[in-house]
Amino acid sequence: MAKNMVEQITNMDEDFAQWYTDVVLKAELVDYSSVRGSMIIRPYGYAIWENIKNALDTEIKATGHENVYMPLLIPESLLQKEKDHIEGFAPEVAWVTHGGDEELAERLCIRPTSEVLFAEHYKNIIHSYRDLPKLYNQWANVVRWEKTTRPFLRTLEFLWQEGHTCHETDQDAHEETVKMLEVYADICERVLAIPIVKGQKTEKEKFAGAKYTYTIESLMHDGKALQSGTSHNLGTGFAKSFGIEFLDRDGKLQTVHQTSWGFTTRIIGAMIMVHGDDKGLVLPPAVAPTQVLVVPIAQHKEGVLDAAYELQKALKSKFRVGIDASDKKPGWKFNESEMKGIPVRLEIGPRDIEENKVVLVRRDTGEKLTVEQQNLETELARLLEDIQKNLYDKALQHRIKKTHAVESMEEFKETLAKEGGFIEAMWCGKQACEDRIKEETQATSRCIPFEQERLSETCVCCGEGAEQLVIWAKAY
Amino acid sequence: MAKNMVEQITNMDEDFAQWYTDVVLKAELVDYSSVRGSMIIRPYGYAIWENIKNALDTEIKATGHENVYMPLLIPESLLQKEKDHIEGFAPEVAWVTHGGDEELAERLCIRPTSEVLFAEHYKNIIHSYRDLPKLYNQWANVVRWEKTTRPFLRTLEFLWQEGHTCHETDQDAHEETVKMLEVYADICERVLAIPIVKGQKTEKEKFAGAKYTYTIESLMHDGKALQSGTSHNLGTGFAKSFGIEFLDRDGKLQTVHQTSWGFTTRIIGAMIMVHGDDKGLVLPPAVAPTQVLVVPIAQHKEGVLDAAYELQKALKSKFRVGIDASDKKPGWKFNESEMKGIPVRLEIGPRDIEENKVVLVRRDTGEKLTVEQQNLETELARLLEDIQKNLYDKALQHRIKKTHAVESMEEFKETLAKEGGFIEAMWCGKQACEDRIKEETQATSRCIPFEQERLSETCVCCGEGAEQLVIWAKAY
Repeated sequence: MAKNMVEQITNMDEDFAQWYTDVVLKAELVDYSSVRGSMIIRPYGYAIWENIKNALDTEIKATGHENVYMPLLIPESLLQKEKDHIEGFAPEVAWVTHGGDEELAERLCIRPTSEVLFAEHYKNIIHSYRDLPKLYNQWANVVRWEKTTRPFLRTLEFLWQEGHTCHETDQDAHEETVKMLEVYADICERVLAIPIVKGQKTEKEKFAGAKYTYTIESLMHDGKALQSGTSHNLGTGFAKSFGIEFLDRDGKLQTVHQTSWGFTTRIIGAMIMVHGDDKGLVLPPAVAPTQVLVVPIAQHKEGVLDAAYELQKALKSKFRVGIDASDKKPGWKFNESEMKGIPVRLEIGPRDIEENKVVLVRRDTGEKLTVEQQNLETELARLLEDIQKNLYDKALQHRIKKTHAVESMEEFKETLAKEGGFIEAMWCGKQACEDRIKEETQATSRCIPFEQERLSETCVCCGEGAEQLVIWAKAY
Repeated sequence: MAKNMVEQITNMDEDFAQWYTDVVLKAELVDYSSVRGSMIIRPYGYAIWENIKNALDTEIKATGHENVYMPLLIPESLLQKEKDHIEGFAPEVAWVTHGGDEELAERLCIRPTSEVLFAEHYKNIIHSYRDLPKLYNQWANVVRWEKTTRPFLRTLEFLWQEGHTCHETDQDAHEETVKMLEVYADICERVLAIPIVKGQKTEKEKFAGAKYTYTIESLMHDGKALQSGTSHNLGTGFAKSFGIEFLDRDGKLQTVHQTSWGFTTRIIGAMIMVHGDDKGLVLPPAVAPTQVLVVPIAQHKEGVLDAAYELQKALKSKFRVGIDASDKKPGWKFNESEMKGIPVRLEIGPRDIEENKVVLVRRDTGEKLTVEQQNLETELARLLEDIQKNLYDKALQHRIKKTHAVESMEEFKETLAKEGGFIEAMWCGKQACEDRIKEETQATSRCIPFEQERLSETCVCCGEGAEQLVIWAKAY
């Protein structure tokens, strides 16, 4: 049977990057392939993505959006229509130059994002204010030619949804930008148990072609930040480049106001790094493919396997229940279910059957509960809810502990070196300071949080007048 | 308001190809884009795909398969590993040669199908008979460099699911191949109301790299056939090329037996061409995004709009119900709902409200029914079921009418020219005859149907001994 699975993963505090790689492979979330920088999302990883996707798709539809599907390939001339956009994306697109044996007259890039395709389509279908708003979304794969890659966090290809909308007024576009950021925040907090900070990206960090970008930022166990979802008010930039115009309520020709927003498989990386521990993955019940794993104890004894299957059957309509009836030893099964982050393990053996009880073991705390079978359904529901809440609370406590306000560059560097985490510091608004901070500390501006606080009157970098609190961090 | 929408579409019998194009555009299923041969799937078209996808995904999971996600890009050397496969697909793949500004050392193709990626992964994860069967599926986009394209029917890029499985024995692989063909047949017949014929492809028409290919074939309104889903027993071809081996129950090293099977957005084209009429689309209730459209009559009169919204609300938990409360004239709304193929139109006006009645209009037959509001839910459920059944029956009658047994090449040509449709004829099994039939009639062998009949003892083409009945047709 070889050695215990948990012995095979690196300790988090020893080497966090290696721990991460160990977890994604040993928990069978992904595998590598011969395609550099791309990953195979295995059944367990994909089932998590399906749960996230279903939750988000429901919210996207509930907020009035419709799903569509745009082409994968973008002609070079189309990509070039919006100047800032092409500058931002050209260095990282994959180019198709041949179809079959023929060289193409114009090369095509694989979409890194689809603003230009939506813009072209919107120009065709929008004519009057009656056609607005247009609230479209698509679930798709995109490709960005990254140099260094890591499963989920940064891959040549990733899966995402991208929303693209058109509105009559800037105010409408602004409200949409906010609304979808709230949807992302809700998915992170409620479904993934990841606490986030909402804010605006600086000019330097905003999306190529946007008027402004809103973001949700989360903090990983190792004190590094991860951008978890972005929502852009595109203003009229794309619309002017593409000529997306409509007759307004007064019969005047106007340009539409647009937004776009995206949420990706990256979030699975965040979930792993926020909740995981030295035993492996820890999954929030809301996304766990298996919420409860039934493990029969002494399963060779008469009646045990039958009772285990009975339990699974009884619970199946309420929970996602698995059973491990393999011939592995219970200890091995325990380790495996811990590695896979299954929220609750349910043990049932001969004595439990006799006493009409089962043992429940929480993945998050390791706590064991003996529960009467007649109360099992209620207890499980309560337990799963409690685990979901506990994961969020723990992560929030961690973020609070790892958030530090600083007032000088010295303090900035010291705190970052010692504690990592979110650094709160005042900023004058000049890119020179942002650049210098990055150069000297490797921390980037994560966002200008919506919830502002006045730490001091001066910029942490140049000492000149500063009105904005910014959150800085090293980031994934 | 311009002219009636229905005036704008071409008559089916006048120009079927133009009718098809008119319908997919006017019913707002797709739009063209500047990407040659690719289509934009608009909200109404995508909602139909989502309904098909959900139905099929449920069956795929119910039969024990797990979803995964493989990379989009395949290194040229990987694609070349299986000889027949690369020969079949090389002429129609898109090649990526540059990532950002860099030329790649090895070019990558965009997956036309993913056998080689699955094979590589399976080699990594399969070691013992305990690892078998592996039953994977993925939902993805694929690209094939087609010269002439038409929305849904043949596009550079299309959406599909591709199943890829590994088994201990050839018998297991055979059973899987049959099982998934049955799943496809069920989706076509039960969900899409498309009658199909099941059979085996000839050697010439089988999948590049397969041992044999099973297919379901359907017949369009214009008498041309459409391949609607295929399931391949891959035998050990890929497995040997990739070295996918396992220790069997006796401790001996064996090669796995594989299958693959796919179902695509093409089926939407089939659904349009099987059920549509001169008023536009006709949707089977099981996939219609809107099953019932409420149209208020004299909606400016007091109480009408309220009553219409009330009805929508009351029916929403049981049916997919829309409402057209726009300021368009009722006649315009009727035409639009007919163009979009909505199965049932529900009219409610002042007099209906007074009498506690509504009027239901069937899209398939045009029949009008006046129904007491208290019976509405029951009547609607019955009606939708009846429409679903009627569409299937009509299509089946059409196919039966358009299926002709022939015994000579002369009869073959005459019948095909006059009637189109499925031609049943005996075949000796030689490719020379298959080629000659195609050359002389433009009909291809659609399948060797599982349900065989002995029309004669001799091949329709060469007159030599023949044991197989083949269905031939011009095809999309």
